Amino acid sequence: MARITSIFSLRNLFVLSLALNVSLILRVVYVSEKHGPFGFPTENKRAPLMADTSETEPEADQRTRLFLPTSSSSVTAPSEVEDDGKRIINLDHGDPTMYEKYWQKMGEKTTIVIPGWQSMSYFSDVKNLCWFLEPEFAKQVVRLHKVVGNAQTEGRHIVVGTGSSQLFLAALFALSPTNGSEPMSVVSASPYYSSYPSMTDYQKSGLYKWAGDAQSFNKPGPYIELVTSPNNPDGFARHSMVNRTGGILVHDLAYYWPQYTPISYQADHDLTLFTVSKTTGHAGIRIGWALVKDVEIAKRMTKFIELNTIGVSKDSQLRAAKVLKVVADSCEQSGSSEYTESFFEFNYHLMAQRWQQLREAVNASGVFSLPGFPPAYCNFHGHILEPQPAFAWLRCENNTEDCESYLRGHKILARGGRHFGVEPNYVRVSMLDRDDNFGAFLKRLSMFQS
Amino acid sequence: MARITSIFSLRNLFVLSLALNVSLILRVVYVSEKHGPFGFPTENKRAPLMADTSETEPEADQRTRLFLPTSSSSVTAPSEVEDDGKRIINLDHGDPTMYEKYWQKMGEKTTIVIPGWQSMSYFSDVKNLCWFLEPEFAKQVVRLHKVVGNAQTEGRHIVVGTGSSQLFLAALFALSPTNGSEPMSVVSASPYYSSYPSMTDYQKSGLYKWAGDAQSFNKPGPYIELVTSPNNPDGFARHSMVNRTGGILVHDLAYYWPQYTPISYQADHDLTLFTVSKTTGHAGIRIGWALVKDVEIAKRMTKFIELNTIGVSKDSQLRAAKVLKVVADSCEQSGSSEYTESFFEFNYHLMAQRWQQLREAVNASGVFSLPGFPPAYCNFHGHILEPQPAFAWLRCENNTEDCESYLRGHKILARGGRHFGVEPNYVRVSMLDRDDNFGAFLKRLSMFQS
Repeated sequence: MARITSIFSLRNLFVLSLALNVSLILRVVYVSEKHGPFGFPTENKRAPLMADTSETEPEADQRTRLFLPTSSSSVTAPSEVEDDGKRIINLDHGDPTMYEKYWQKMGEKTTIVIPGWQSMSYFSDVKNLCWFLEPEFAKQVVRLHKVVGNAQTEGRHIVVGTGSSQLFLAALFALSPTNGSEPMSVVSASPYYSSYPSMTDYQKSGLYKWAGDAQSFNKPGPYIELVTSPNNPDGFARHSMVNRTGGILVHDLAYYWPQYTPISYQADHDLTLFTVSKTTGHAGIRIGWALVKDVEIAKRMTKFIELNTIGVSKDSQLRAAKVLKVVADSCEQSGSSEYTESFFEFNYHLMAQRWQQLREAVNASGVFSLPGFPPAYCNFHGHILEPQPAFAWLRCENNTEDCESYLRGHKILARGGRHFGVEPNYVRVSMLDRDDNFGAFLKRLSMFQS
Repeated sequence: MARITSIFSLRNLFVLSLALNVSLILRVVYVSEKHGPFGFPTENKRAPLMADTSETEPEADQRTRLFLPTSSSSVTAPSEVEDDGKRIINLDHGDPTMYEKYWQKMGEKTTIVIPGWQSMSYFSDVKNLCWFLEPEFAKQVVRLHKVVGNAQTEGRHIVVGTGSSQLFLAALFALSPTNGSEPMSVVSASPYYSSYPSMTDYQKSGLYKWAGDAQSFNKPGPYIELVTSPNNPDGFARHSMVNRTGGILVHDLAYYWPQYTPISYQADHDLTLFTVSKTTGHAGIRIGWALVKDVEIAKRMTKFIELNTIGVSKDSQLRAAKVLKVVADSCEQSGSSEYTESFFEFNYHLMAQRWQQLREAVNASGVFSLPGFPPAYCNFHGHILEPQPAFAWLRCENNTEDCESYLRGHKILARGGRHFGVEPNYVRVSMLDRDDNFGAFLKRLSMFQS
């Protein structure tokens, strides 16, 4: 009898235990489903995508892209593009949307998750002179420069900015004497970046003043020279152009990356500017950085950003850190299988194909010409390469005085030479737009005949 | 015999089943731990936190907070705080870390997930005069103002900025004549926000110049008056103080929210500034917005931000949109259960308790005094309330000339009256710091005796 009850109780316990198993199995399945393949809550993963669906693609498509070979044959050929000649092709800005393709390929690798209670404070690193610099961002900047070999970071202070534009202004502020009898002259050799004059003068600062083309600058006294290399708009490598000493140089190396130009030396300047926009294509993130040798200059630049915007978005710095990390990882893992190219290799091939297509279209037209660039050995790629700038510096050869208006007549928007301090028979065209827009531009060019 | 084997097998099955239970229980525990309390992979959640661990609390603490009722009794009582008198208590800045508690409570509701290929372009909305304004952010700004009733958004243009600091500079730029014979005078009634003078003058702009206290301003000609209401540092409601017409007003309503002050009217000014930092506590996000009546002024402000930073971080705008949405949702769902308070109710109670504790400590000390505020009917809360500002405007009553130095002698860092254009026997103390720091401050105050 006792045995029977013990059997019953054992049987009861067994049934109870089985029931527990079932509930636990269900719980395990439920948890892993709810959090999706990467442990992110599925519903949250969707939400932000809604903010700009035009920038994104259906998830299914993203998944398949993950397994595509990184062949640059994915560039749209002009023949594939439909063009009735009426569509307005806007290549006036250097909007780097070409890079969306690579980041879609990378799928979730660069996805960032920010909980609501995170990075609420103004402060990122109170021990750092740049107190709003996220340590993880600084770490990835140093790492990427080491991997690429394009700039010396040792003995430098990193100052983060809301894009390199803010750092450009911070540099002018930091390098100009506070009690000067007159504003410091700011010069750059023409053709120079079209925004330098307006960025320098829009506040009518008593500290600094735009003084035009560095090649014709002969005013006595100190000055700041902006050296952009490779240069925007024409893509040539640059060095100081003022024919005397006493100048303070600011090196804008926004385009000194292996997809645009051979990395032939490690930059080792006093003050160098970089921006995520042109490095990885994340322009909307608004993050740039300066490598600064002099601690007092770094402090003044930090002070400028403190008074200008009380620091720099932590969210953007954290996202930039993630993106730079994935780029550096891609370089270190490059070639480990037939489907792995580094970020720079993939986009180098994309740019190479675009430049080849553009030169063919330009030669066929007989209306335009493009500058030629001397090849050089690239320490990153490990062989001799030709520069393939982020902008094409087109010149009208058909006695057209105003190349910008001429193109506008054909519904192509580009920026004329006057904006860059040179003749209007030149025009700057972005090479970094999406495939369909760039393809439409090539197609439109094929309609020109001398 | 058969019975014995059946017993054995049943016993075996039972043991087997129990073993399965154990493994499944371990699996469940493992999964929930790995994904943390909110279902994020711990390493993902940790990684960004590592960037500013000093700003965060142990995960365990966050987990328990989740299950706390939203009673403001969770404010740390001074008696609970250990203070050997040696710890430096820094309440100099208005770092709004107090709000971390609420956002931890909200768990993943405000989590944002940004894929690597999202918001890469410079442009957010080319049809909007403020081309870098994220439509979703603009939508939530309008919605929140409607829910709270603190500002009229109809007939206004929204300009987004990298914090309201950038919008302050953009407003000075937009409101000053480009070809004025001399810089436009910028004034504010003392005590005024300590950064106004340096922010106005650091670039030595030829467009505008700091001209001091609005109450003593009597220079002929046009001027810009900054009206901060509730005022930083003293918390009083403000209106124009210059005793004549011809002034252009900029209303800084950073603190015109229901946790700080009764919402007694709907602001309807020409140019009004707000910031996410003081609205929700997300200072590290660096997002502010301006409501601007005149389209030309909105265009000039947009131009300033274009030349200053080429737009505003999209990541931060998307995150800000999410945060503002959750705040507005919390207001609309408020009271639906005993544990649901709106964001403003929860933080109103927190501020009320802090102010009560502060007044008790100040009265007990006999060394300090605090301003009193007239109660008013709050359209949001629906009853009469006293203002409870984000800063305490302490006055030393013990013939101490320099209250900042006096507090510094007791290892309390706060900002003295001189910074705000008044006597040094006043000092500004942040009321928005974390519980432990605020609690330590109260404890330290209890050591003062007249």
